[in-house]
Amino acid sequence: MEYDGRPFSGWQRQAAQPSVQQAIEDALARLEPGPFTIAGAGRTDAGVHARGQVAQCDMAKDWDPFRLSEALNFHLKPAPVAIRACARVADDWHARFSAVERRYLFRILMRRAPATLEEGQVWRVMHPLDVTAMREGAAHLVGRHDFTTFRSVMCQAKSPVKTLDSLEIKAVDGPAGPEVWFSLRARSFLHNQVRSFVGTLERVGAGAWAPDRVGAALEARDRAACGPVCPPQGLYLTGVGYPEDPFGG
Amino acid sequence: MEYDGRPFSGWQRQAAQPSVQQAIEDALARLEPGPFTIAGAGRTDAGVHARGQVAQCDMAKDWDPFRLSEALNFHLKPAPVAIRACARVADDWHARFSAVERRYLFRILMRRAPATLEEGQVWRVMHPLDVTAMREGAAHLVGRHDFTTFRSVMCQAKSPVKTLDSLEIKAVDGPAGPEVWFSLRARSFLHNQVRSFVGTLERVGAGAWAPDRVGAALEARDRAACGPVCPPQGLYLTGVGYPEDPFGG
Repeated sequence: MEYDGRPFSGWQRQAAQPSVQQAIEDALARLEPGPFTIAGAGRTDAGVHARGQVAQCDMAKDWDPFRLSEALNFHLKPAPVAIRACARVADDWHARFSAVERRYLFRILMRRAPATLEEGQVWRVMHPLDVTAMREGAAHLVGRHDFTTFRSVMCQAKSPVKTLDSLEIKAVDGPAGPEVWFSLRARSFLHNQVRSFVGTLERVGAGAWAPDRVGAALEARDRAACGPVCPPQGLYLTGVGYPEDPFGG
Repeated sequence: MEYDGRPFSGWQRQAAQPSVQQAIEDALARLEPGPFTIAGAGRTDAGVHARGQVAQCDMAKDWDPFRLSEALNFHLKPAPVAIRACARVADDWHARFSAVERRYLFRILMRRAPATLEEGQVWRVMHPLDVTAMREGAAHLVGRHDFTTFRSVMCQAKSPVKTLDSLEIKAVDGPAGPEVWFSLRARSFLHNQVRSFVGTLERVGAGAWAPDRVGAALEARDRAACGPVCPPQGLYLTGVGYPEDPFGG
């Protein structure tokens, strides 16, 4: 699934708030008697986008996957949510628990002028960022660590120990100006972990933090040692990995 | 200037319709007593975007160009219009009449699923397009021709004879799926010329038109020989060329 996170309070269904989960459950209920409860691989926050979110549900009818995606897209209109593909899965397959990798992208646009066509799709930073210094800082984060510093106090994960498989930073010549793209891969992420990383690394890129301070912050295992958590609008869930890709990719 | 064309009836000021020109003139009037009338290099239609529109105006005060762009961007909020740069020009310089080149980009997104993050910024086509065939068709259009077939009946240009300097077509692997990008350069364009070209070439790419039919349509010098005019939302004015670039680019 792909979605523009702006009009939603996030992926997860909440009473009296528009959510992506609810939009899809409502579309499903137009096809078969509900109620439906779908499970998503990543619970994106308000304003966070997706290019490759995955969810599963049980249907009574044996739908052809292509026809199901067409029917859902028809009923999802005008919400900015699109089903890019559907696939049949085994009964014991679970979008969230079977996932072995989540991939995220974070986009920073560096320019003084406000964003127009990219408004809500990038974090605009008005000063230049030193990519080399940010890469040095990021190197401290890759691997298996206690990420207490970089998770929200609201995080419900049982353990703060996670393995960050990669955090790549590259300069991109975007149509609105120079961008910095952060690409992250891990089996799973803690709540606000990507935004805590990017907000901290932005301080390194701006020269306010020495790259080594990222390592010291990690070792502190203290939420107070984190840099500022960056805003959500540059964040995209780009993909979810499974031992066998149900979409055949 | 950069803008998202969606909320506007086009560049040009019209009574009781939101226009980009009006938004900028209103921002100028917050800085100095008006009224202001600015001239733009390209009069983009409703829904057409710009990455590099250029306009000029006369200010009473000798503004520092950087401070002027900052002040205008402040007053333009929340309209999706951004001043990317300001520059001082000679008294006889005119954004429209001094221009020697206009550059446009048109984006087609090829996929079944509705666009979400790119909604309003691409023309979505649900079938594959043959880029090689479209390039063959486009080759008929490059050069100096009578473009009567490819201009709106509303076009106010004195002559339908123009020189199309280039029309390049490339396949792009976009974040939402495969795209086709049409890049066009000419001293000036007729009304709806780019959208008439792209709508016609899409028919070639879809296999409905043989590439040679584009040449026959051009030679007919008859608006009725044109393919369908494509929608505006994939079109961007990307830049304007001057004998000496006032922005130093």
